[in-house]
Amino acid sequence: MNHKDWVQKELRKLGISLGFKYVPFEEIEERLTRVRKGMKKQEIEALLVIQKMDFYYLSGTTQDGILFVPLEGKPLLMIRRELERAKVESPIENVVALDSNRELPSMIKDYWGRLPQSLGLELDVLPVRDYFRLQDLFPGTKLMDASLIFQGARKIKTTFEINLMRMAGDIGRKVYLEAREILEEGMTEIQFGSLLEAAAKRYGHEGLLRVRSLNYEAYSWHVLSGPCGGIVSQSDSPMGGLGLSPAFPVGASLRIIRANEPILVDFGTCYHGYQVDETRMFSIGKMDQKFIDAYNACREIHDAVLEEIRPGADCEAIFVKTLRLAEKLGYRDSYLGPPGLQTRFIAHGIGLELNELPFMAPSQFYPLEERMTFAVEPKIVFPGEGSVGLENTLFVTQTGYEILTEVDQDIFEVREC
Amino acid sequence: MNHKDWVQKELRKLGISLGFKYVPFEEIEERLTRVRKGMKKQEIEALLVIQKMDFYYLSGTTQDGILFVPLEGKPLLMIRRELERAKVESPIENVVALDSNRELPSMIKDYWGRLPQSLGLELDVLPVRDYFRLQDLFPGTKLMDASLIFQGARKIKTTFEINLMRMAGDIGRKVYLEAREILEEGMTEIQFGSLLEAAAKRYGHEGLLRVRSLNYEAYSWHVLSGPCGGIVSQSDSPMGGLGLSPAFPVGASLRIIRANEPILVDFGTCYHGYQVDETRMFSIGKMDQKFIDAYNACREIHDAVLEEIRPGADCEAIFVKTLRLAEKLGYRDSYLGPPGLQTRFIAHGIGLELNELPFMAPSQFYPLEERMTFAVEPKIVFPGEGSVGLENTLFVTQTGYEILTEVDQDIFEVREC
Repeated sequence: MNHKDWVQKELRKLGISLGFKYVPFEEIEERLTRVRKGMKKQEIEALLVIQKMDFYYLSGTTQDGILFVPLEGKPLLMIRRELERAKVESPIENVVALDSNRELPSMIKDYWGRLPQSLGLELDVLPVRDYFRLQDLFPGTKLMDASLIFQGARKIKTTFEINLMRMAGDIGRKVYLEAREILEEGMTEIQFGSLLEAAAKRYGHEGLLRVRSLNYEAYSWHVLSGPCGGIVSQSDSPMGGLGLSPAFPVGASLRIIRANEPILVDFGTCYHGYQVDETRMFSIGKMDQKFIDAYNACREIHDAVLEEIRPGADCEAIFVKTLRLAEKLGYRDSYLGPPGLQTRFIAHGIGLELNELPFMAPSQFYPLEERMTFAVEPKIVFPGEGSVGLENTLFVTQTGYEILTEVDQDIFEVREC
Repeated sequence: MNHKDWVQKELRKLGISLGFKYVPFEEIEERLTRVRKGMKKQEIEALLVIQKMDFYYLSGTTQDGILFVPLEGKPLLMIRRELERAKVESPIENVVALDSNRELPSMIKDYWGRLPQSLGLELDVLPVRDYFRLQDLFPGTKLMDASLIFQGARKIKTTFEINLMRMAGDIGRKVYLEAREILEEGMTEIQFGSLLEAAAKRYGHEGLLRVRSLNYEAYSWHVLSGPCGGIVSQSDSPMGGLGLSPAFPVGASLRIIRANEPILVDFGTCYHGYQVDETRMFSIGKMDQKFIDAYNACREIHDAVLEEIRPGADCEAIFVKTLRLAEKLGYRDSYLGPPGLQTRFIAHGIGLELNELPFMAPSQFYPLEERMTFAVEPKIVFPGEGSVGLENTLFVTQTGYEILTEVDQDIFEVREC
């Protein structure tokens, strides 16, 4: 059989039978309306969408290609590989083969009648070499940075998107339940975490938490035990862990987890590209009172943030409130990292990527809006000893919030051997 | 305890006790010599190394920062986070804090006496926005593309590097042995693959196979069963699989693996950043004779490639030889993918990234050199039915080659229930 025929006849059926949720046409229309508002404001006549998650957001497929979005008129989806799959996966009407970037100008001219005077690109991630090529290909066109347009459109989620995040939350819930059965004395951090990851994938977790950045790398989860929880690493996170080598110095290590120490499990899940993030605490036997107290402080800070969540609440103000509360509770120097290495956010937006709007952090002077989604994560770090934390992902409703990561928040104690 | 003190006193000890191999000073010296040859040739006075794997290659650490490499004199390692870990992990003498990119010019001036007239950057991956900022910061400096310098230096491996690849190969060997115990009728593709991944991580596999590209995404492994093995996806690979959703349409799916169909297991492992890639075939009961025949053809093509491996052999010529052999064996239309979608390489360089030199492919008119490392992967694809393949990673010795992925190449048959 020919690949084209097989994909046309069988792929959609097989996908649906295995749980694929294809993005509907109306969903793409709604997103395009949002993106075009941003284009109008920035006076951009057309976009070339290249980065995988922006591309998926506006096309419903992640096959390899480029999406042309004019301010008015229908978008053109140009696919390098695999064209027939893109046709099945995307509700966009005009889907054509892209053999080489050299053809871009003539394809756009044929489709749209002329070349755009201004063209928006994702300059926050697009490699310089690709930019230079586009400059050569579109010599009369002004190339502009469109990355804030995507950031602005994607910060408010649709019902379709929130439902996918709910499914991601549901996978997380199942994983944390299984974690109670999996954790045993004598396991290494990586062994425990890998089995959680295998459980999550069995339920459809896509295995990654995407971050929009050249150099960011981490698993979709951390398992940090005792002193490893007190180690700061490369990323902008209160703690990073030891990792497996100087080439991957973040997350779980080959250290054997011991009894009576805090075990921080920060496990993110991804379903159809949509992510939630959550953290819970485990121990084998009882962990030291110092950590229990610190964890209770995290819960208090977490709840204080949630009290403020509603449309209109100021993001910076919430962050500052938590600083004051952490100080009052006696954790000024260990809140969000050790002294000198403390991170400066208590919540980050989350959806297709982990560093979306909103951030609850200094200088974030904007209000929360309905259908924003973010993860709240108070953490307390003691170098050489360990760390504790609580994290939930939620979305802003008309009057408050709803939590997407419904897992019991008590410390889970496994019995000692 | 303070984080700085703890890291200075404890980190190296803990790392070594858990198997960390820190890159020695002489190793960095050797790599610098190679990189500087390329700088001289391109008349680049200094490099700013930003991309994580180039940065690790020349510094021994992957903490977040920028490495300044002058053509003469010692490099300067500037670290955003985490400074003390970088000092422990890197053998570079001059390691300083980098608070903001704004400080780059003054730091370089203070350290080196003046600003360079030409500055090499990784323009194949560096985001445009970062490039514009560097243009503003270094207005009198010519910014040049240094990416081929790294490609050229990294294509020949040192003994230290080959030994790390040997360790990666050894993890792979253990995983394929465990695979025989893990595979059971009734498992889904993702379930089988996730358990292999968990096994690999337990032995120190870092969980990723890095590819130098903006949009590339895949697990470090594929498990493709029956018709899923016949599906082409976004990446330049003979087959891609169905994946978990339109947002991750590659690799294992939630499909239940059935008896008597080919199960292709393409499992890459990564140890201290160094990667090997290998593919073996499994089945539950006996797979159809059609696939057994095709797999034997893959073995024949694989062996024909290996016969040619020695310093001086031409990369394109080897590729062409395999095309002819595939045709002779009756697989012209299914070799390396279905008609119209066939990939055009039989081997790819591998090391810190999966798309290094050499490629055995059309227009690759250069000879193999001693200590090049690459993966040879003949594969045969039948849309709607399945695919088979064999893959090994090897390096070129003075007179031939040595295989780094020593796993039995016979099809492994698990008993039917």
